[in-house]
Amino acid sequence: MAGDMTTFKGKPFDRASLESLMKRRLFYTPAFDIYGGVSGLYDYGPAGCALTNNIVDIWRKHFVLKENMLEVDCTMLTPHEVLKTSGHVDKFADWMCKDPKTGEIFRADHLVEEVLEARLKGNKEARGQKVEVEEEDPKKKKKKVKNIQAIKLDDALVQEIEEVLAKIDNYGGEELGQLIEKYDIKNPATGGKLEPPVAFNLMFQTSIGPSSNMPGYLRPETAQGQFLNFQKLLEFNQQQMPFASASIGKSFRNEISPRSGLLRVREFLMAEIEHFVDPEGGKKHHRFDEVKDVELELLNRDVQLAGKTHVETTKIGKAVESGLVDNETLGYFLARIQQFLFKIGVDPKKIRFRQHMANEMAHYAADCWDAELLTSFGWIECVGCADRSAYDLSVHMKKTGAPLVVREPRKEPLKVEEWQCDLDKKKFGPKFKKDGKTVEAAIEALSQALREKLSLDLEKEGKIVIDVPGVGDGKVEVPKELITIEKRTRVENALCEHLYWTREQDEARGVLSFPPTVAPTKVLIVPLSSHADFKPFVRTLSDQLQELGISTRVDDSGASIGKRYSRNDELGTPLGITIDFQSVKDNTFTLRDRDSTEQVRAGLDEITKAISSLVNGKEKWSDIAARLPKFEGQEVD
Amino acid sequence: MAGDMTTFKGKPFDRASLESLMKRRLFYTPAFDIYGGVSGLYDYGPAGCALTNNIVDIWRKHFVLKENMLEVDCTMLTPHEVLKTSGHVDKFADWMCKDPKTGEIFRADHLVEEVLEARLKGNKEARGQKVEVEEEDPKKKKKKVKNIQAIKLDDALVQEIEEVLAKIDNYGGEELGQLIEKYDIKNPATGGKLEPPVAFNLMFQTSIGPSSNMPGYLRPETAQGQFLNFQKLLEFNQQQMPFASASIGKSFRNEISPRSGLLRVREFLMAEIEHFVDPEGGKKHHRFDEVKDVELELLNRDVQLAGKTHVETTKIGKAVESGLVDNETLGYFLARIQQFLFKIGVDPKKIRFRQHMANEMAHYAADCWDAELLTSFGWIECVGCADRSAYDLSVHMKKTGAPLVVREPRKEPLKVEEWQCDLDKKKFGPKFKKDGKTVEAAIEALSQALREKLSLDLEKEGKIVIDVPGVGDGKVEVPKELITIEKRTRVENALCEHLYWTREQDEARGVLSFPPTVAPTKVLIVPLSSHADFKPFVRTLSDQLQELGISTRVDDSGASIGKRYSRNDELGTPLGITIDFQSVKDNTFTLRDRDSTEQVRAGLDEITKAISSLVNGKEKWSDIAARLPKFEGQEVD
Repeated sequence: MAGDMTTFKGKPFDRASLESLMKRRLFYTPAFDIYGGVSGLYDYGPAGCALTNNIVDIWRKHFVLKENMLEVDCTMLTPHEVLKTSGHVDKFADWMCKDPKTGEIFRADHLVEEVLEARLKGNKEARGQKVEVEEEDPKKKKKKVKNIQAIKLDDALVQEIEEVLAKIDNYGGEELGQLIEKYDIKNPATGGKLEPPVAFNLMFQTSIGPSSNMPGYLRPETAQGQFLNFQKLLEFNQQQMPFASASIGKSFRNEISPRSGLLRVREFLMAEIEHFVDPEGGKKHHRFDEVKDVELELLNRDVQLAGKTHVETTKIGKAVESGLVDNETLGYFLARIQQFLFKIGVDPKKIRFRQHMANEMAHYAADCWDAELLTSFGWIECVGCADRSAYDLSVHMKKTGAPLVVREPRKEPLKVEEWQCDLDKKKFGPKFKKDGKTVEAAIEALSQALREKLSLDLEKEGKIVIDVPGVGDGKVEVPKELITIEKRTRVENALCEHLYWTREQDEARGVLSFPPTVAPTKVLIVPLSSHADFKPFVRTLSDQLQELGISTRVDDSGASIGKRYSRNDELGTPLGITIDFQSVKDNTFTLRDRDSTEQVRAGLDEITKAISSLVNGKEKWSDIAARLPKFEGQEVD
Repeated sequence: MAGDMTTFKGKPFDRASLESLMKRRLFYTPAFDIYGGVSGLYDYGPAGCALTNNIVDIWRKHFVLKENMLEVDCTMLTPHEVLKTSGHVDKFADWMCKDPKTGEIFRADHLVEEVLEARLKGNKEARGQKVEVEEEDPKKKKKKVKNIQAIKLDDALVQEIEEVLAKIDNYGGEELGQLIEKYDIKNPATGGKLEPPVAFNLMFQTSIGPSSNMPGYLRPETAQGQFLNFQKLLEFNQQQMPFASASIGKSFRNEISPRSGLLRVREFLMAEIEHFVDPEGGKKHHRFDEVKDVELELLNRDVQLAGKTHVETTKIGKAVESGLVDNETLGYFLARIQQFLFKIGVDPKKIRFRQHMANEMAHYAADCWDAELLTSFGWIECVGCADRSAYDLSVHMKKTGAPLVVREPRKEPLKVEEWQCDLDKKKFGPKFKKDGKTVEAAIEALSQALREKLSLDLEKEGKIVIDVPGVGDGKVEVPKELITIEKRTRVENALCEHLYWTREQDEARGVLSFPPTVAPTKVLIVPLSSHADFKPFVRTLSDQLQELGISTRVDDSGASIGKRYSRNDELGTPLGITIDFQSVKDNTFTLRDRDSTEQVRAGLDEITKAISSLVNGKEKWSDIAARLPKFEGQEVD
């Protein structure tokens, strides 16, 4: 094994020295160390944080940016009802046995496996056979077996035990209890009798709100938040399928006895992508061609069932063609996952993709492949890629009645409420003339309590009277034709208020003037129409900008150029590129500044250089406008 | 107010249209919406995520990168004992009153304030005085008062109530109960009598591990993890003070009735910096000169105590000189916070720094200034900048006995344990000769159970016997002079295993060959010695690289160049720049590649261009080595 681990020139790989280095240089450290530590909880130090941040950054560029995935950041606190529906409250559990004398707690499946394996070894020793050196499997970290006793077993019993071990992942609590009974399995350290297995749910429980009547959990995965937002994301994506959502954040699992260092911890960073695809389209993927020649090491289900572990190096195109990998979408993501792992430095000689056997899949999965990495502990699962079919959307839909399907209207019951005043500005100006702005400001400044009171006045008397110092006698009457006062939902964001304004010429559209460094999306790419001639230019521009780490959004809808820009003013997109017939002729494009709506025109290189400079905060629009030729184009609604 | 809000040209600011936009375009959305929602919990959609990510990125560059802060990422799950010691279990609470009839729960201070303010207004109305339009304060979101009754109050009572209101933040639960009694304060909606105030701790409680015997909380702030790691960070920083740690992550507060949208939520992203400074040095800051001319709008404590709110525009240099801001370190950070806020788009006309009054400071603070932003809801606290003195370090030190002080040895009791075999390689080679590597590999591959068993053999019999197929008769004896087997701590990381190796020529030092895109720190800057001539070059290089967003680390210790490079090989730093006497003459530097240890020599621009290209993954070292002149320098230990 040691020989296998050496890719870089130099001395043979030595695990102990790597571990010592990582602790010494504070890549990570046990959390609450000065309080004695808590198993399964680690803090990351400066080098560990920087490493994580860089990997997250590459993950975002490789997946989210490249494929225009819709990133969401959902809460970790999750009400009971949601996880009850998803199946986690009932099924996200391991079986544990307690030793009533010592208070020790064992994971039942691991204990049975460990004890029976030790007996098989003892049998071999007793028969004078060579005891195989076992690869330690850190996914199943064991309580130490004190020592292996050389006791000979019947041939029939050996075969029986081997069969039990082959199916160990398949037993429920009752069956594990029977096995413990049948094979007289005890606490390996003390020989003490154990209580029967009980289910231990791996979610951390808490209570939300002051009245303790809303039980909740810390999320065990980030996927549920993505499913719950499905309908909104679909709408955000203008009702177009397929699309992917993505989420990265901490998840929590209350492991029974976490002892495998960073591999099995109770709080961990998790990156998940949910790709929503129409099953009727055969799960095709439009970029599958780009990856079809990527070679993967595949360890399929049948090989494993035959008790073997040899892998086949297969082009993913062939694997999908032959049905080994079920469909293009699954195949596309397997290839992209491998590309990502290579990017962050994984050794191409130490990776394989292993298909789950039927009995080891999670309760939601229809098919699943794990990217596994070879380490000094053996092969370790690193990325799971599962076809969850429509399991999650169906159960949430059934439970809530919310239509988590394509092309259904969405309801959005907001919980935050407020009294809001709306003015009929067409009538308001003529009525108050020069005092209009002052009266408007006084109304805007009314307190919530007063608004509520005034709404009653308005209903009863058909008008309200408010104090406006400096206008008439200081009291101003506003009739109900000019104002409505309603209780509405409200939310608020200080930074966005500083940056929000509405163009004079366009009643309906607001602008969020984020600095280019801060803006969520940097560049809108707008072909004049959906004409095929424009498509290669759209691709070149977005590829080239993504290469520079700059997020783009393409709007090739049928709306007018002006309308498409307006929509993106709302998202705060600072820059826009128009592709027109001139572009097709001479490879020049116009670049538009959101705030001034000024445009310049230049060749591809000049345009991308200008964008990069603006997005990195090196230049301002005025600098660009000064050095590139101005373009006086039409921006019509 | 509406007039004040308009900075961008265009229509007057309209809050409702901004809110509608942000919900419609999925910047954020209520969490668990299809389940009816949970107040105080919001999800962020694609635009909200991108915005957050960009702001976090700028925060890291502005603070962490610029000042070489030590970032840590600590767990959110926190054991009871830690937060008991920090004071949060006892003091991090609000007072709440329950209406036993309706089950409604009120935050006691907000309720008293709201009802008494309504009475003062009713009094004014009854006296025919103008009712002041109040600025709603969303930090104290109120239950709606049904309506204000115009009831005249005695002058003495008015004065008394005004005094109560001025001190509202100062009352404890018992006093709030007395006020409720005295002024006969009831449920404003129903007139129902309320139960006396009880303390409600704002932390979410849970239980860690399967045995329910370790109560814990979700952290209410990220600071505690930074304090607990103080000693390790100090060591990481080579025992040099001052230094700063930084942390960004989710924190949790179980608000009693969160109703102010994104301003008061139960789960939120929090960025905290702890700057550790030696109080005996007068809290000087070595970069204070760089900010001393930054102008801030300061609202000091005395002005507020006099019931006023006028601010003074003051250069921070002057403010520290006059003692208005206590010391350089505090002043430096106030200026840097303002610069950060401007960078992300905050309007310079709508920011002020407000000093806390003595009675409103948190239990740990010695002095505190808030950066406040003007919004349509009034002034909102956005960043707190507190001098916590040594409160936290002292209490944790007292509780645990861990020496959280400078220049004390550190203990690190790891919880993860494993049996490890160490070989005496000097004796091992001569004994096994050509079979050495094979025997070593067999030992490396021994299972944990076997290692434990063998450790007993070694003790009893002074040797171990292991199976090594192909060597002699397949059994190999290893005497205790050649091997030790010990139970030690262990942790593990798959990616790092793939990238770890040890140079042939240097026994002690490992190398982590992270790709430059992934490496935690990108460039090590090494002046030949600490000679004053080199200092300006160090500064120019690190400033210029930071400008490009590239993280650097300076090592100007007395160790040899080779040693300093070795230390950073361990951290995986891919590039190194040496500043030597030649640099002082002609402004050229050598650039070293970690993996090959090759060096090239070139001028400043060429060097930074090469680094940027490597760090962004555009070129490989072989490209750089091909185009820049090779440097055959001494790299001696």
